[in-house]
Amino acid sequence: MFITLEGPEGSGKSSQIRLLYDYLLAQGVAVRLTREPGGTPIGDEIRACVHNVQNTAMCPEAELLLYSASRAQLVWEVIRPSLAAGMVVLCDRYYDSTLAYQGYGRGLDLTALRQITHFATGGLKPDLTLLLDIDVEVGLARRTDGGVEMNRLDLETVAFHRRVRQGYHQLAAQEPSRWLTIDADRPPDAVQTDLRTIVTQCLRGHVNT
Amino acid sequence: MFITLEGPEGSGKSSQIRLLYDYLLAQGVAVRLTREPGGTPIGDEIRACVHNVQNTAMCPEAELLLYSASRAQLVWEVIRPSLAAGMVVLCDRYYDSTLAYQGYGRGLDLTALRQITHFATGGLKPDLTLLLDIDVEVGLARRTDGGVEMNRLDLETVAFHRRVRQGYHQLAAQEPSRWLTIDADRPPDAVQTDLRTIVTQCLRGHVNT
Repeated sequence: MFITLEGPEGSGKSSQIRLLYDYLLAQGVAVRLTREPGGTPIGDEIRACVHNVQNTAMCPEAELLLYSASRAQLVWEVIRPSLAAGMVVLCDRYYDSTLAYQGYGRGLDLTALRQITHFATGGLKPDLTLLLDIDVEVGLARRTDGGVEMNRLDLETVAFHRRVRQGYHQLAAQEPSRWLTIDADRPPDAVQTDLRTIVTQCLRGHVNT
Repeated sequence: MFITLEGPEGSGKSSQIRLLYDYLLAQGVAVRLTREPGGTPIGDEIRACVHNVQNTAMCPEAELLLYSASRAQLVWEVIRPSLAAGMVVLCDRYYDSTLAYQGYGRGLDLTALRQITHFATGGLKPDLTLLLDIDVEVGLARRTDGGVEMNRLDLETVAFHRRVRQGYHQLAAQEPSRWLTIDADRPPDAVQTDLRTIVTQCLRGHVNT
């Protein structure tokens, strides 16, 4: 069972997925937590390059290819072996981030992005994708207030982040059986309760089928 | 005018292209010398990752995407602006290296590689590609004897490097009007004389047309 979390900046993904991971571990579920970009030593080198706020000259195509390289390594080194071992894999961002940020956000050709994504992942799709949805201004304010380390994407305009959010909505609408949207503009406990309920139900369904 | 040098390990590409660059400069040609992977600050970060001999766990897809990211940045930041300014661009390796090493050498799907290459370069092709051709064993012996800094590709087998060389031969046969093959198993001066003659003729033809 392969579950991904997606969402715009400040949606609380990283802390929510960590809480969900701890919960599943405590329930005795064999679970692996990872993230993009990064999640492997090679991916972490790529993450440092792509998030480096000094690298303002990075062109959109290079950015996309760096994210894809990190993803290819993660699928090969972590996700596929963990799934093959029967584990649940939780991943903080996956290829839907590429479609939302580089496709809808930056305007790169979606067909080309899907081809490159397919090459990078060998066609590996999540079983379930949870979208932590939040108003762009609310999310960005959370990041600047929250003492989060800023990265290169924080330098983007509000209009960019709005296109990303709309992109997520379109992706979710295109594959309703894979996506579930969760209102992230609520207290963290309420969001976490929803995530636990959804994932527990899905794992039960997955085991039963 | 965009000229690329290609060839297997130990073919002398890097020293030959440097001599050719110095010669053209002395002739008053407006020329820019660059290389792959690297050639930009972002590309040099990528080069460090992809050449790092510690990164033996790197999967072929990640490797290909890293080379392509470096290439996208180089095209965008260096090659296109230099060509637009009317300069001659000399590049030590370009996308034919990807087709030869990752396609023919590692067996990745050539159609996918061409799609990704097209995305990375925006379809920018060299006007002229010079293949410094050399027997694989002779080339590898030159590298180990020559005090060259070893990189991750030096860890590959002789069989891999043979497939790369055969790949180059096939690429050259597919586009004979773009490729010229030069026997690199000769004294460096003789190889350089050939390169100067060929490039001078091409520049003359290019200016005249």
